[in-house]
Amino acid sequence: MPDQPTLGVCYYPEHWNRSDWPDDARRMRDIGIQFVRIGEFAWSVLEPEPGVFEWAWLDEAIDTLAGAGLKVILGTPTATPPKWLVDRFPEILQVDREGRSRRFGSRRHYCFSSPVYRTESRRITRALADRYGRHPGVAGWQTDNEYGCHDTVLSYSPAARDGFRRFLADRYGTIDALNEAWGNRFWSMPYRHWDEIDLPNLTVTEANPSHWLDFRRFGSSEVDAFNREQVAIIRELSPGREITHNFMGRFVDLDAFATAAPLDFASWDSYPLGFTEQADLPEEVKLRYARTGHPDMAALHHDLFRGAGRGRFWVMEQQPGPVNWANWNPGPQPGMVRLWTWEAIAHGAEVVSYFRWRQAPFAQEQMHAGLNLPNGSPDVGSTEAAQVAAELAALPLPANEPGDLALVFDYEAAWVTDIQPQGADFVYFDLVYRWYTALRRLGLNVDVVPPGTALNGYRAVFVPTLPILRETAVAAFETYTGPILFGPRSGSKTATFQIPDELPPGPLARLLPLRVNRVESLRPGLERGVRLGNRLYPARRWVEHLETDLAAAATYADGSPALVAKGDRFYLGFWPDRTCLNAIVDLVAGRAGLDTERVTEGLRIRRRGNLCFCFNYGPDDVDAPVLAGAEFVLGGSHIPPFDLAVWRC
Amino acid sequence: MPDQPTLGVCYYPEHWNRSDWPDDARRMRDIGIQFVRIGEFAWSVLEPEPGVFEWAWLDEAIDTLAGAGLKVILGTPTATPPKWLVDRFPEILQVDREGRSRRFGSRRHYCFSSPVYRTESRRITRALADRYGRHPGVAGWQTDNEYGCHDTVLSYSPAARDGFRRFLADRYGTIDALNEAWGNRFWSMPYRHWDEIDLPNLTVTEANPSHWLDFRRFGSSEVDAFNREQVAIIRELSPGREITHNFMGRFVDLDAFATAAPLDFASWDSYPLGFTEQADLPEEVKLRYARTGHPDMAALHHDLFRGAGRGRFWVMEQQPGPVNWANWNPGPQPGMVRLWTWEAIAHGAEVVSYFRWRQAPFAQEQMHAGLNLPNGSPDVGSTEAAQVAAELAALPLPANEPGDLALVFDYEAAWVTDIQPQGADFVYFDLVYRWYTALRRLGLNVDVVPPGTALNGYRAVFVPTLPILRETAVAAFETYTGPILFGPRSGSKTATFQIPDELPPGPLARLLPLRVNRVESLRPGLERGVRLGNRLYPARRWVEHLETDLAAAATYADGSPALVAKGDRFYLGFWPDRTCLNAIVDLVAGRAGLDTERVTEGLRIRRRGNLCFCFNYGPDDVDAPVLAGAEFVLGGSHIPPFDLAVWRC
Amino acid sequence: MPDQPTLGVCYYPEHWNRSDWPDDARRMRDIGIQFVRIGEFAWSVLEPEPGVFEWAWLDEAIDTLAGAGLKVILGTPTATPPKWLVDRFPEILQVDREGRSRRFGSRRHYCFSSPVYRTESRRITRALADRYGRHPGVAGWQTDNEYGCHDTVLSYSPAARDGFRRFLADRYGTIDALNEAWGNRFWSMPYRHWDEIDLPNLTVTEANPSHWLDFRRFGSSEVDAFNREQVAIIRELSPGREITHNFMGRFVDLDAFATAAPLDFASWDSYPLGFTEQADLPEEVKLRYARTGHPDMAALHHDLFRGAGRGRFWVMEQQPGPVNWANWNPGPQPGMVRLWTWEAIAHGAEVVSYFRWRQAPFAQEQMHAGLNLPNGSPDVGSTEAAQVAAELAALPLPANEPGDLALVFDYEAAWVTDIQPQGADFVYFDLVYRWYTALRRLGLNVDVVPPGTALNGYRAVFVPTLPILRETAVAAFETYTGPILFGPRSGSKTATFQIPDELPPGPLARLLPLRVNRVESLRPGLERGVRLGNRLYPARRWVEHLETDLAAAATYADGSPALVAKGDRFYLGFWPDRTCLNAIVDLVAGRAGLDTERVTEGLRIRRRGNLCFCFNYGPDDVDAPVLAGAEFVLGGSHIPPFDLAVWRC
Repeated sequence: MPDQPTLGVCYYPEHWNRSDWPDDARRMRDIGIQFVRIGEFAWSVLEPEPGVFEWAWLDEAIDTLAGAGLKVILGTPTATPPKWLVDRFPEILQVDREGRSRRFGSRRHYCFSSPVYRTESRRITRALADRYGRHPGVAGWQTDNEYGCHDTVLSYSPAARDGFRRFLADRYGTIDALNEAWGNRFWSMPYRHWDEIDLPNLTVTEANPSHWLDFRRFGSSEVDAFNREQVAIIRELSPGREITHNFMGRFVDLDAFATAAPLDFASWDSYPLGFTEQADLPEEVKLRYARTGHPDMAALHHDLFRGAGRGRFWVMEQQPGPVNWANWNPGPQPGMVRLWTWEAIAHGAEVVSYFRWRQAPFAQEQMHAGLNLPNGSPDVGSTEAAQVAAELAALPLPANEPGDLALVFDYEAAWVTDIQPQGADFVYFDLVYRWYTALRRLGLNVDVVPPGTALNGYRAVFVPTLPILRETAVAAFETYTGPILFGPRSGSKTATFQIPDELPPGPLARLLPLRVNRVESLRPGLERGVRLGNRLYPARRWVEHLETDLAAAATYADGSPALVAKGDRFYLGFWPDRTCLNAIVDLVAGRAGLDTERVTEGLRIRRRGNLCFCFNYGPDDVDAPVLAGAEFVLGGSHIPPFDLAVWRC
Repeated sequence: MPDQPTLGVCYYPEHWNRSDWPDDARRMRDIGIQFVRIGEFAWSVLEPEPGVFEWAWLDEAIDTLAGAGLKVILGTPTATPPKWLVDRFPEILQVDREGRSRRFGSRRHYCFSSPVYRTESRRITRALADRYGRHPGVAGWQTDNEYGCHDTVLSYSPAARDGFRRFLADRYGTIDALNEAWGNRFWSMPYRHWDEIDLPNLTVTEANPSHWLDFRRFGSSEVDAFNREQVAIIRELSPGREITHNFMGRFVDLDAFATAAPLDFASWDSYPLGFTEQADLPEEVKLRYARTGHPDMAALHHDLFRGAGRGRFWVMEQQPGPVNWANWNPGPQPGMVRLWTWEAIAHGAEVVSYFRWRQAPFAQEQMHAGLNLPNGSPDVGSTEAAQVAAELAALPLPANEPGDLALVFDYEAAWVTDIQPQGADFVYFDLVYRWYTALRRLGLNVDVVPPGTALNGYRAVFVPTLPILRETAVAAFETYTGPILFGPRSGSKTATFQIPDELPPGPLARLLPLRVNRVESLRPGLERGVRLGNRLYPARRWVEHLETDLAAAATYADGSPALVAKGDRFYLGFWPDRTCLNAIVDLVAGRAGLDTERVTEGLRIRRRGNLCFCFNYGPDDVDAPVLAGAEFVLGGSHIPPFDLAVWRC
Repeated sequence: MPDQPTLGVCYYPEHWNRSDWPDDARRMRDIGIQFVRIGEFAWSVLEPEPGVFEWAWLDEAIDTLAGAGLKVILGTPTATPPKWLVDRFPEILQVDREGRSRRFGSRRHYCFSSPVYRTESRRITRALADRYGRHPGVAGWQTDNEYGCHDTVLSYSPAARDGFRRFLADRYGTIDALNEAWGNRFWSMPYRHWDEIDLPNLTVTEANPSHWLDFRRFGSSEVDAFNREQVAIIRELSPGREITHNFMGRFVDLDAFATAAPLDFASWDSYPLGFTEQADLPEEVKLRYARTGHPDMAALHHDLFRGAGRGRFWVMEQQPGPVNWANWNPGPQPGMVRLWTWEAIAHGAEVVSYFRWRQAPFAQEQMHAGLNLPNGSPDVGSTEAAQVAAELAALPLPANEPGDLALVFDYEAAWVTDIQPQGADFVYFDLVYRWYTALRRLGLNVDVVPPGTALNGYRAVFVPTLPILRETAVAAFETYTGPILFGPRSGSKTATFQIPDELPPGPLARLLPLRVNRVESLRPGLERGVRLGNRLYPARRWVEHLETDLAAAATYADGSPALVAKGDRFYLGFWPDRTCLNAIVDLVAGRAGLDTERVTEGLRIRRRGNLCFCFNYGPDDVDAPVLAGAEFVLGGSHIPPFDLAVWRC
C-alpha cells in the first residue's frame, strides 16, 4: 500500500485516557510511524450492551490518529466476543479435544462452525464497516486476529460435527464413496448415513487417518469461510481499502495460502525470540540465538507469507522487547529490533508494525514490552524504530523481485505427517526449517510457494516432502525444466490418505521411476550410513528402501540407493543430518549452475531488487561477503554484531 | 493342532477384491502356510444393518481358502461393534478413568460389563458359530481380539460400577466383612450398603489399595466371563474345533492364566521390535537390539503363554517387518523374521502365524508391514517365512518337554505393585524380565507358571516376587524339595491388601523364619552396598531390613542380612543389579547341582526334546556352545549374525 | 501449653482393638510421651448413620488415655465426611480445575464454599465439643486436618463460583470498580453484572492474572472462614482449652498467617525426607540428604509456623521412619528422628508429636512407618523418641527469644509469581528457601514474618521478593533503621495485579529511588555476568534493568547497576547463584555489624535462650564451632554424624 516500505504500530486507544491520544499520535509520527492498527479486541467497548453501540470514542480515536497524519488499519473485533454474547448463546463456545467447552475469560473462545457466531461476526463486521468503511483515515482492515491461536482451529462442538457431516457429504456425494475413500472396511468402521459420523476425538485408540485428515481440512476451511464472510462485507462497505489478516508464526493448523486468497495481502506476527525459545532446536543453538532469534526464524516466515500474499506482505506485529508468553523471555540484543525490521524489508515487507505502542500495565499481556513503557516513556525498541525510519527515509528501496529458488510448502503435508508421524521426530515444520537453513547458505533468494505453483523461472526447486501429490503439482514439476529435489515421503499418500496403488512415490514415479518398498523410522542414536561423494554421513530419523533402476547419487552402506536422480530430478530417501543436507543442496545447486557465495554461520544475505542486505546475527564483527569496491548504502564492509550492511549488487 | 509345527497367516478377505482371493490362497500355500486366521474385525461386513446378515462373501472366502488346502481360524468380531450398534445402545461404550465415554471410530469401544453388549456378543457369536461351526474348512476359533488392548480391561461405566458391587457382594457376603477386609475404618471410609460403593477413580487422592485391587480383579474377571460366554456357544455349535484367544505381550492388566483356562490353547501376538522400543531397558540396550528385539522379549512370552495354555500355544501374530505403533519403527535385520519363527518353535509353538498377509493401504494400520506389500508383491518377511517352511519340512520336530527351571509369574503381583509401588521404579514386569534374563544365562529351559503349580520335577524355582501368598502356593513351595529363590515383597500382603498380622513375609515365614521390619525405596543414585561371596554389589531401588536367625548368604555393609537361606530356600531382601542377580542365580543353581553352560551376551539357547537351538541376536559371528562332533540339523557350529543353529543334544 | 517442651503422638484408637488401648497408653507414657492427638478422621465411627452418634468408644478411649496421664488433643473429623453425607448432599464435593467432581474414596472430598458442608461442619464440631469440651482429659483441639492437602484449597464448584461473586462484590463494591481494577478493557473482558463472572479455569488461554489472584485470595479466605466457624464453636463449648491446626510443609496455597490468627498456636507436619525428595534441589543435594532431609527443610518451617503462631508452635506430625507418599521413600539415618526432634525444640517447638503411634496394616497409609510396627513391636523411631524424652527430662530449657534476623514471607508473593512466573523457574518457595539457606550460614536465629510486621529489634531484614507492597509493609520498612535487602520483583505489582503507575518497584522507590525499566527471564544456560567486589558471578533465571542514581554495589558486565543501595537499604535486581547470594548476605550482614560464625556445609546452629544447639546433618564427625571451655549440656565438642551438641552461650 505504501510506495516505500515504512513502519507501523499496534495501538489500543481504549486502554488509555483520551487525553493521551493526541500526544501518542504525535510521538508516533515523530519516530516515523505511518500506520496504526487499532480495534481488534474492542467489541465490548463498541457494543457494551446487546445492540447498544458506542461509537464516539472510536470516532475520536480515528480522527485523532488521522489528524496526526497516521493511516488506520481497523480490526474486526471478533476474536473477543463479550461476556453478554457468550451468556446469551453459550453454544458459540469452542469445544476442546477432551470435549470440554472452553470458557470466557481470555480470548478466541468461539467456534468457527457456530451458525450463531457466524451471524454475530457478520453483524459486528457490518456495523463497523458501515460506520468507518469510507472514513478517510481508514486505510485498511484486519479481519479478526491470529486465527487459530491457542489451538482454536479445530473445535469439537456439536456445530462443528454437523458442519463436518455436511462437508463430507459435499466432498464424497455418497456414504459408500466416503467409506471407500477412508478404507472403512477396516475395523468395521463403515457408516450407513452421514449422521452416523462423529468427530475423530475421544476414540479408544487413534481414529482413521483419513477421518482426521478430512477433519483438519474441514477445520481449516471453516476459518477460510469465516474470513470470507467478513471480507465480503468490508469489500461492500469500504471500497478502495485493503484487507489483510495477521497470521501466526510456527503455525500450520490453518492453510494460510487458502485463507489469504481473498485478502489483498498477508500479514504475520513476528516474535523471533519467543519462536526460537519454543522451536525444536538443539539446546546450544537455542542458547546461541536466545537474544537474537535464530537467523532463519523470521526470514522463513517472511518468505512464506510473501508467498501467501501473492508477493505482498506486512509484519503486523513485530517484537520490540521481551515478550510474556514463552517459558523464558529474555530481551533482544541491542540492535536487534532494528535488524529484524530491516530484514523484513529486505524480504519485501511493505510495512513493519510494532506490537505495541505502549506496554499495558494490566491484564494478560502486562509483561509484554512495547515501544514505550507503561508510563509512556520510550523503551529501547522506540529508539531503534526511529533509527530505521530515518534510514529508510534516506534510502529509496527497489521493488522485490521473484526469488532464485523455490521451496514448496504444503499445509496438508504438515497435517499428514502430524496425523501419522510413524517416527516420533518426523515433524514437518522442523523438516522445512532445516531445508530452508540449508538453502540460505547459498546466499540466494528463496520463494516459498504452494504445490501447483508454476516453477519456471526458478533456478532450482526444493520439496522437503509432499505426501499428497495432486495432478496440478505433478504437472508443475513436469513442466519445470530445472533441478528439483524431492524429500522423503513425497507421493506416499493419496488425497484420501491411502497408500497409492502403485506404492510410493505414487505419481512422482512418472518423473522418477522408483518404488519405495519399505520405510523405517529410527530412534535417536540409531542410524544408517550414507555414502555421498567420498564422505560417509549418518541417515537418522527416517530411511526408505528404494527399488529403482535410476542411478544412485548416494547409497546406503549396503550399496542400495539412498538418493537417486533422473536427469536433474532427485529423490532423497532419508532424513539427512545438517552437513549431509548441505552437501545434497550443493549437488542440486551445482546442477543449476549456481555460482553461490557461501555465507558463514550467523550471517544471512537477502537481495531486494539491486540492493544486497547482509545481517550479522553473531556476536563478532564480520566482513561483508562483497567484492572490493562495492558501493555501500547502509553500513560498511565491516559488520558489527547484531548489525547489517546494504550494498548495491 | 498340527502334528508338526507349521506356519499361519492373518488375512482379511473383506479388504480385497474377491478376484484376489484365489491367488492369495495359492501363494500362501506356495510358501508353506497351512493356517489362516480371518474375520475378527468383520462385524459390519457380516451384519451391515441390524439383523441383516451377509454371509455370501464369507462363505466364498472360507471355501476359497479351504479349497486351497488352508485351515481357517475364524475370529468372533466382537472387538469392533458397528456404528449402528453403538448408536442404538450408547451405554455399551467403555468409559475411561477420567469418566469420559470412549467413542466409536477405532476399535475395542465396548465395556465388558455392559449387559447389552454381552447379549450382542453372544448373538453375533451364535450367528457365526451356527453358520460355520461345522464347516470342514474351519479348524478353530479365536475369541474377540487382544482383550484389553488400548487400556480397555478396566471400564469406569455405570454398568461396571453395578457389576463391581455385585462382585463385592459375592466375595464378601456382608458389607461389614468388606469394611473389615478393606480396613475402611481408616479415613472414615466404611460403607453401609453395597450401593454406596463407587469405582475407585476420580478420588481426591489415591483410593484404598484394597478397593483398587478388588476392582482390578473384577475387571480381569469380567473379561474372563465375557470370553467364557463365547467359548460356551462355540463349543456347542462347533464340535471338534479348537478355541483360542490371542493375548498381548508386555501386558498384565488381564490374568491370562484364568482367561486361557477354558481355551484349548493360548495364543499371543509377538512384536519384538515394538516391545523392545517400549520396554523399560537402558538406552544402549534399546539401540543394540533395535532391529532384532531384545533376546528375551519373545522368549519370555513364549514361556508365559505356553504356561497359560497348559503346554500349548501359538504365535497368532508374528511381526514380519516394521510396525506402525511404536514411537519409532525400524525394520528387522534381514534374517530376524526367520529367527523369530524358529525361536517360537524351539519354545514349543505349534503354529507361527504372521500378521498380516498383505499390508493394508488404508486406515489405521496402513504403515504396518505384511508378508506382502500393499500391491501384493512379496516383502522380505515372505521370503524368510518360505525359508522356514522349507526347513521345517526337512526337520521332524520332537515334542516340547517340561522345563528345567520354574519361574513363578503372578498377575496379582503386577497389580499389587502397580497400585502401591512405594518406589517409583518398582515395576513387576521389569523385575520379572530381569530375573528371566538372568536365568537364561544358564542355558536351561524355563517354564513360566502361576503360583500354586506343582513344582516337583523342576531343578530350581524362582519367584521374583509374590506379595499375596495363598495357601495353595505355600503348599506347593512346602512340598517342593529343590532350591527356591524368593524375591523382595514376597508374602508382604494378605489377599485383601493388608500387611499380614505376623508382618511380611507372612506365611512364607513358615519356610523361611524371618521378619521384614522395614522396607526402603531408593531413588536412582542412592544405594546400599551388599557383600556376596567376596564381592561388593550395589542394592538399588528396594532394600528390606530383615530380622532373622537364619544364616545370611549376603549382607549389607553393616553386617545385617540381605539374602538369607534355610536349606535350599532363599529370601532375597533387595533389588539386585544385573551382575549381582547373576551371582545369586548361580548360587541357587549351584545348590541344584546344575552344570550349566554359560552363554554369551546376544546368544540364547533352548531345547525342544532332543534338539538344541541356539540363536544369535548379535551382530558378530559366534561359535555355537557345543562339544566337538555335535550333529547339526540346521546351520553349523559357526553361527552368523541373526541366524541360528540346531543340533541333537 | 506444656511448661517445658515435650513429646506427643498421633493415635487412632478406632483402628485397634479396645483391649490394646490400655497397653498402648501405658507404653506411650513409658517412653515419655505426654500428648496424644486423636479423632481427626473418625466421623464415620462417631456418626455411622445420619444423626446416630456412637460416643461410647471415644468416651472410653479418652478415659483410657487420660487415665494413663496423657493429655488429649481432639481433632474435628471434617476432613473425612462419611459416604452417607456425600450421597445425601453430592453438592458438597470439591470440583477440580478440569471441572470434575472429586469423589468419595479417600479424604478431603469437600468444597470449603459449600453452604451445606459448612452447616455439617458446624454440626459435627458442635456435637463433639458439646460432649468433650469440658472433659478433663481433653487439653486442646485440632481443627480438621491439613487444610488444602491434595490440592483442595481451590474448588471450581458452583458454590465456589457463587461465593467468589459475593467476595468480589464485597471487595469492589461496583462492577465498574472491578473492571477497572482488573483492567478488563483488555481483550473485551468487562462484566456488566456480578453474576457474569465465572471462575478462571477452563479458559482458552490464561485468564486475567487479576482474576486469578482474587480467586486465590478467595480460596484462602474460604478456608479461613471455615476454620473460624469451628474455632468459635470450640471456644464456646470448651473453655480453657487451646486450639490449633496442623499446617503442611512446602505448601503456599493457603495463607497460614491469616488462618492461624484465631488459633492459640500453629502446628505443622514435618516430613523432612519426603519434602527433600519432592523439593526443587539439585540431584546431588537430594542424594546427599536423602536419608537426613536437607538441613534447612524442617528449620525453615519451624521458623515460619512459629511466626504464624505468633511465637508458639508444635510439630503435630513428626516423621518417625519411611513414609509412603514420595516417589521414593528411604529410611532416616539412625539418629535422625532424635535430631529432628531436638531441632524442633531448638527452634521453639512446645511439643513434637510423632505420626503415628503404630503403623496401620491397612488402607492408604499402610506403608507409612510409625513409632511401632503394625504388630505393636517398637520400631527405630520409638527408641529415639524415648532417648529425647530422657534427655529433655534432664535439661531445663529456656524460653525462645526473638530472632536476630527477619525474613519476610508473603503468601501473596507466592500466588503472584505462580500466576505470572514470566520465567519458568521463578518459584517463590525455591527463592525463599535459597535465601534462608544463605542466612543460616551466619549461625544466627531467623524469624520468618509476614509483611507489615514491626521490624525494629532485628539486626537485619531480608525480603526475597514482595511484589505487592502494601502501605503497612512500606511503613514497617521505613520505620526500620537497620539494613534491609529487597529481592527482585519487589514492588512490581499493585494490589490488583497491575504494574504500578510509577513502574516497579512502586512504593519501594520511596526508600530506594530507582526504576525497573525491563525484566528478563533467562533459560538455563543463559546468564549475565555480575561483578560484586572483585569477583564475577553469573546472574541466572531473572535479571532486571535498573535506572537509578543510587550507587551500585554490584554491576552487570556493561557497568549498569545490578545491586543498588541507599544507606543500608539494598535492592537486588537479579536471581543470584548460591555463592553470589552468600556474598550479598555477607555484605548486608556486615552493615549490621554482625560478627558471625561461619558454619560448614551440613552443620546448622540455633540458639534457644542461652542454649546453643548445633546439628550435624553430614556423614562425618565435626568439631562444634565453640570457644575452648564451653559448657556442654548435651553431647560434646566432637559431634558424630547425625547427632547434635548443646552448650551454654
